[in-house]
Amino acid sequence: MQIFLNGKRAALLCIVALSWTILAARQTEPTHSLMPVPAQVRFTNGTFRLTESFTIVIRRTSTSRLEAGMQRALQRLAGRTGLFFSRPAVSQNQNADKPALSVMVKQPGEVKLGEDESYTLTVDARGILLAAQTDIGALRGVETLLQLLSADKDGYYFPCVRIVDEPRFPWRGLMIDAARHFMPVDVIKRNLDGMAAVKLNVLHWHLSDDQGFRVESIVYPKLHERGSDGMYYTQAQIREIVEYADERGIRVVPEFDVPGHTTALVYAYPELGSGPPPDGIERKWGVFDPVLNPANESTYEFLDRFIGEMATLFPDPYFHIGGDEVEHGGKVKHWDTNPEIQSFMKRNELENNKDLQRYFNERLLPIVKKHKRIMIGWDEILQDNMPKDIVIQSWRGRESMMQAARQGFQSILSSRYYIDLIQPTDYHYLNDSIPPDANFPPELQKMVLGGETTMWAEFVSWETVDSRIWPRTAAIAERFWSPQNVRDIDDMYRRLNVISLQLEEHGLTHEKNYEMMLRRLVNGNDVSALKTLVDVIEPVKGYNRNNLREHTSLSPLTRVIDAARPDARVARNFRTVVDRLLTNTPLDLQILAELRTQLTVWEQNHAVFEQLAERSPALREVLQLSDDLSAVARIGLAALSLVENEKQETDEWGKEQLELIKLARAPRGQVELMVLSAIEKLVYAASEVQPSGTKNK
Amino acid sequence: MQIFLNGKRAALLCIVALSWTILAARQTEPTHSLMPVPAQVRFTNGTFRLTESFTIVIRRTSTSRLEAGMQRALQRLAGRTGLFFSRPAVSQNQNADKPALSVMVKQPGEVKLGEDESYTLTVDARGILLAAQTDIGALRGVETLLQLLSADKDGYYFPCVRIVDEPRFPWRGLMIDAARHFMPVDVIKRNLDGMAAVKLNVLHWHLSDDQGFRVESIVYPKLHERGSDGMYYTQAQIREIVEYADERGIRVVPEFDVPGHTTALVYAYPELGSGPPPDGIERKWGVFDPVLNPANESTYEFLDRFIGEMATLFPDPYFHIGGDEVEHGGKVKHWDTNPEIQSFMKRNELENNKDLQRYFNERLLPIVKKHKRIMIGWDEILQDNMPKDIVIQSWRGRESMMQAARQGFQSILSSRYYIDLIQPTDYHYLNDSIPPDANFPPELQKMVLGGETTMWAEFVSWETVDSRIWPRTAAIAERFWSPQNVRDIDDMYRRLNVISLQLEEHGLTHEKNYEMMLRRLVNGNDVSALKTLVDVIEPVKGYNRNNLREHTSLSPLTRVIDAARPDARVARNFRTVVDRLLTNTPLDLQILAELRTQLTVWEQNHAVFEQLAERSPALREVLQLSDDLSAVARIGLAALSLVENEKQETDEWGKEQLELIKLARAPRGQVELMVLSAIEKLVYAASEVQPSGTKNK
Repeated sequence: MQIFLNGKRAALLCIVALSWTILAARQTEPTHSLMPVPAQVRFTNGTFRLTESFTIVIRRTSTSRLEAGMQRALQRLAGRTGLFFSRPAVSQNQNADKPALSVMVKQPGEVKLGEDESYTLTVDARGILLAAQTDIGALRGVETLLQLLSADKDGYYFPCVRIVDEPRFPWRGLMIDAARHFMPVDVIKRNLDGMAAVKLNVLHWHLSDDQGFRVESIVYPKLHERGSDGMYYTQAQIREIVEYADERGIRVVPEFDVPGHTTALVYAYPELGSGPPPDGIERKWGVFDPVLNPANESTYEFLDRFIGEMATLFPDPYFHIGGDEVEHGGKVKHWDTNPEIQSFMKRNELENNKDLQRYFNERLLPIVKKHKRIMIGWDEILQDNMPKDIVIQSWRGRESMMQAARQGFQSILSSRYYIDLIQPTDYHYLNDSIPPDANFPPELQKMVLGGETTMWAEFVSWETVDSRIWPRTAAIAERFWSPQNVRDIDDMYRRLNVISLQLEEHGLTHEKNYEMMLRRLVNGNDVSALKTLVDVIEPVKGYNRNNLREHTSLSPLTRVIDAARPDARVARNFRTVVDRLLTNTPLDLQILAELRTQLTVWEQNHAVFEQLAERSPALREVLQLSDDLSAVARIGLAALSLVENEKQETDEWGKEQLELIKLARAPRGQVELMVLSAIEKLVYAASEVQPSGTKNK
Repeated sequence: MQIFLNGKRAALLCIVALSWTILAARQTEPTHSLMPVPAQVRFTNGTFRLTESFTIVIRRTSTSRLEAGMQRALQRLAGRTGLFFSRPAVSQNQNADKPALSVMVKQPGEVKLGEDESYTLTVDARGILLAAQTDIGALRGVETLLQLLSADKDGYYFPCVRIVDEPRFPWRGLMIDAARHFMPVDVIKRNLDGMAAVKLNVLHWHLSDDQGFRVESIVYPKLHERGSDGMYYTQAQIREIVEYADERGIRVVPEFDVPGHTTALVYAYPELGSGPPPDGIERKWGVFDPVLNPANESTYEFLDRFIGEMATLFPDPYFHIGGDEVEHGGKVKHWDTNPEIQSFMKRNELENNKDLQRYFNERLLPIVKKHKRIMIGWDEILQDNMPKDIVIQSWRGRESMMQAARQGFQSILSSRYYIDLIQPTDYHYLNDSIPPDANFPPELQKMVLGGETTMWAEFVSWETVDSRIWPRTAAIAERFWSPQNVRDIDDMYRRLNVISLQLEEHGLTHEKNYEMMLRRLVNGNDVSALKTLVDVIEPVKGYNRNNLREHTSLSPLTRVIDAARPDARVARNFRTVVDRLLTNTPLDLQILAELRTQLTVWEQNHAVFEQLAERSPALREVLQLSDDLSAVARIGLAALSLVENEKQETDEWGKEQLELIKLARAPRGQVELMVLSAIEKLVYAASEVQPSGTKNK
C-alpha cells in the first residue's frame, strides 16, 4: 500500500482534509440524538425504564397549555413504543406517589418575545424531573426528553442525564409563504408541530403577495374574494391556527407586504394602486409593477382599517409590513410614471423613490403603533431617520444586519437561511447570526434578536413544502437555540437523520411524499430505477429553476425536480465514503467494495430507466441525466479499479474522463447530479491529472 | 410432466378450480383501468393526445361547482403529466375554437338524493365531449376521463371511447366514525376527494357515541366541552366540510346516535340519562349502559332544540338518529332498573324495551320532521308500526334489509360493508345490495336506495384510517355504481392497484403511511426485514383484536397490527401464484423459480428480524410470527422441490408439515400470516396427504 502514498495521493489528502477533519471531530459532551443540542448536558450511568405504569404528574402550577402538551407527549411515547399506559396518564396530584415524570413549573408563560423558555431536565434511575420557570419552558424540555427515548434488548428507556438548557436567541422563526402557493390549514398545523419539536418559537406567516391575498377580510372583502382564487384562510381558520401555535408556545407574526408585492391587493382595490389596474392576480414569478400609492390618503385609511382588523386576529405585538423590493433595477415604474405621485414628491421634497418609501413607512408606523403593534419589515425599511423601535429582518446579507445594529435597530437574520434555494444543510447550519467578527462587539450583538428560515413558495405546493422545510430547518433551529460553538457538521448530519424520522409523527410528509411522488411519475410501473436516479440528484440551486424554464403559479409541481430533495442523502453519503476511501491508509477494501457495488448499480440503471421512460413520458426530461449517471459511473468504476490495483493512468486519460464528467454537469429538467465531484476525485486518484480545486457537487 | 397428473393433482385442481376460473374470466368489454366500470363503455381505435395547449371549455350552463371541478381536474392532469398548460385553462367561451374538452351541462345540479348523475363521454381523435344533465353528472364524468389517461412512447393520451354512464343506486355512501377516534378536518376532506374520485355521493358522518361528542353546540355547549377532550369540529369547520362536499357533489348526512351510545352526551347532561351519571366519557370499546330517558320530557325538549341547531349546519334532508344497540344481551340496564321509567312503561302500556324504544322513536320522528328532515336509523328502529317515511340502514344482515322492504321501508345496506373488520376486498365486492333471489322482486328492489361502507373507528387513528378505507372502498363504490353483472374479482384487483395509486394525489395516506409506520417501528434501523414480514400479515378479522387484547381509546395505534393492512397484497399475490403453479400443465418453471425466491427470502428473514427486534422492543410481539414465517417457508421450499422433481412424500410427512403449519396459525400481536393456505396447498401437492377443504388464509 505504501507505493500508493505518492505525491498524487498527498495532493488528494489536501483536498479532502477539511471535510475529513470535520467528520472526525467530536464534541466533548456526547450529543446523543438531541437537536438542538442543549446548553449543558451531562450523561451519567444508568437508565430510567419506560413501562406501562409510566405516569406524568404536574406539580405546582398547571395550565391548559401544559396539560395538553403533556398529553401529547404521552401519546407520542405510546406511539413510538406501542406501550399501553395503564393509568389516566397526566394528573395534577400534588401528593402522587413516585410518578415517573414530575413536571414543576413556576408560573404560566406568555407566548411573547423574550419569555423564559429555560428548563432543567434530570433523569435518574428513580424518575424524571422536568423543572421550568414557565409552562413554555416545560414544553421545550419535554421535547428534549422525547428525543432521549432509547431502546435496547430489555425495552425502552431514558438514559440518566442532567440537562440545563435555555435558548441562545429569543426569536427563532420559520417563515412560510402562503401567498405564492396556498398552504392549507393542515400544512401549517403539522409544521407548527415540527417547529415545536425543534424548539422554534415564531411562525412568520407571509400572507399577501402579487400572486395572492390569503386572509379573509370582513372590512375589505374584495381582498380575499378577488385576490385569492378562493384559496384563503377564513378568520375562523386564522384564529384556529393562532390558538394551535399558542398551545405549542409559538408566536404567529403575520406579514402583509406593502407597498410593493401588492398585485393581488391592487387588483382587489385598484384605487389604492399607483398605476393602471392589473388584469388579475399575478401568475408569474418575480418582481412586479403594482405598488400602493403613498400620495393617496385613501391608502392610509385602508391600512388603518385593515391593520385594525388584522390586529383582532393576530395577538402578537409584532406586525410585519414587508417593504421589500419596491425598487426594481433602481426604478419603481408606477411611481416614476404617475404625475400625481411625481408632483407629490416635489411638494414634499422627496428626492427619490427611497425617500418616498421612507415617507410611506413614516406614515405607516403610527398606524401600526395605533393598533398596539411593533413594526417589522425587510431590509429596505431600514433608513437612517426611521425611529429605532422598528425591527429589521435582514435578507440581503449579514452586513445589512450589522449595519442595522450599528444604527440602533434590533434585527433578525434571514440571509443564507433561504431554504427555498435548495442549499445543503451545512451551508445554513454554519451561517451564524452573530458574525465571529471583532467589529461586532457584545453591545451590538444584543441587538440581534435571532433568525428566521424562509420558505418562499414559488416552487412548492402542499405536497412538497415539507420536503423543503424538513429536515434542514431542524439544523437551523439548532443554530438559533444552541451554543455558538456547536458546529460539528458530521454530528449534525448524524442527528438530523434521526430527527427527520421523528418529525414524521406529526404527519409531516418530507420523507413519505418522496416515494409517493416517484410512484406517480412511473405511473404504476416499478419505481426502483427512478429512485436510483432521483436519490442522487437535486434541483438546481438559487434562482436557476425559473431561469432555466419559466414557471407560473399554475405550473405542475409534481415533476422529477419536485420529487428530488435538497441535500440528497445517497449522494452525500457517496461523497463522504469516497473521501474516506481516498484518505484512509491502508486502502479500506470494504469501502472499495461498497463503492463498486454502488457504481455498478448506477452504471446499469440507465438501461432500465430508458424502458421506464418509454411508458412514463414525464421522465423524459431527465433521460439524458440518467444516461450521464451511467456514463460517469463507468468512469468511476474504471478509476476504482486503478486505485485498487495501485495503478495510475496518464494525465491524458484523466483529462478525457474529466471532460466527460463535465458534460454531465449540465442540468436536465432543472435537476443536477450530485456525485460528480466525488467521481472526479476518483479520477484524480487514478491518474496523473492534477485536481483543479474542490467543487460543490 | 404427465406423470404428475395423477389423482393427487386432479384433487388439487378441484380445490383451486374456482379461483382460477375467476382469474381467467374476462369481461367482454375491456374495463381499462376504470373503477367504477361505467354502465356502457365502448373503446374504438385511435387516441386523443394531451398536449400543453389542452383547454377545457364549459359551454351552456356553468356553475361555480363545475368551474372549480374542472380547474381541479386540469390541475390533476398537469400533476400526473408534468405538462405546463399554456393557456388560462378553463373558460366559458361559447365560441371557443376547438377546445380539447368541451363540457356541456343542461342545468345546475342539487346535492340531493336522486339527483341526475348521468353523463356521456366521447373521446375521438379531434376532441373530447363531456355532456351531462347536471354539473354533478359532469363531475362524475371528468373522474372517468381522468382514469382514462394513458401514456406511450409518444406521450400522454386518452383512448378513443364512447361512454354512457349512470349509477345503479342513488345512495352510495361512506360512513366515517369521528366519535371513537376524532378525525381532523383534513382527514375528512381528503376522504371526500377520494370518494368523489370513485363516484361515491354520501358522507355519513358518525358524530357522537359513548367515547365522544364531536360537534360544537352553541345551544348545549357542554356537549363538546365535556364530551370531547377538546377534540370536536367547530361549527365553522362543519360548514367548511359541508361546502367542500357540496363542491364535489357529495351529501353529508350527520348521525347523532340516540337513545343508546350516549355516554358522552349523558356525561355532559346527566339529567337526560336514565341511570347514574357517568364518570366521564367512555374509554373502552363495546356497548355501554348510559341511555337517554324516554320518560323524561326534557329529553324531547333537548332533542328538539339540538336537532334544530344541527339542521342549520347540515342542509341535507336526511338526519341519522342512530338507534342501534340500545338492548345489550336482551336488557337495557338503566331502563330496567329505573323505577320511574318502569312505571312510565306501565302507564303507557309499553311491554318491553323494544316498545319503549319505539315510543322514543315515535316521539323523535315528529321532532325530526318539524326541522324538515327525514329520519334515518339503524336496523333497530324498524318496527311494524313506524311510519313508512323513515329509512332503515341495515347492518345486521341483508335479511333485515329485505324485511324492511317488504314492510314498506326504504333502506340502505351496510351489512358486509364493515371495512373496519379487515375482510378482503372481494368479500365486500361480491356482496350485492340486491340479492339474486326470487323472493325479492323488482318492486321491492326499488325500495333499496343503495349501500354504505362503514369505517368504525375503534382501531383507527388519523394516521391509519385511510389504509382501512382505501383502496377497498373503491371496489365497494363499484358495487354501488356499476351494473350488477360487473363481478370479475381478478379484473377488480387489477384495476384496484391502479386506482389505489391514483388516490394518493388527494393526499390520502393509505399507501405512504405504510412505510412511515414501519420506519417508526424500527427506530432508525433498516426497515426491510420488518417489511418482508408485514407484507404478508394482516390484522385479525372481525372483533378479534379487542378480544385478544383489550384496548381503550388511549391505546397506541402505531403497532405492527396498525401498519399491517387488510388484503395484504404480497400475500394475495403469493396465493394466486401458487394456485397458478399447481393448475398449470406442464409445470411452469418460471413461476416455480419465483416462488422459490420468495420462500427463500422468508426463510432467511427471521435471522435478520431477530436482530432488529433486539433494538426495537415494539417488534417483539411478532417475533414468534416471524419465526413461524421462516418455518413455513422452509416447508414450502421442501414441498416445492418435491413438486419440481415430480416426487411425492408420504402421507405421514404431509401430516407432519400440516401440523407445523397449523402452529403458525396462532395470531401474535393480533396479526396473522396470510400465506399458510398456499403453503398447505404445496404440501398437498408434494405428498399423499389429502386436502381437507379450502381455508381463508
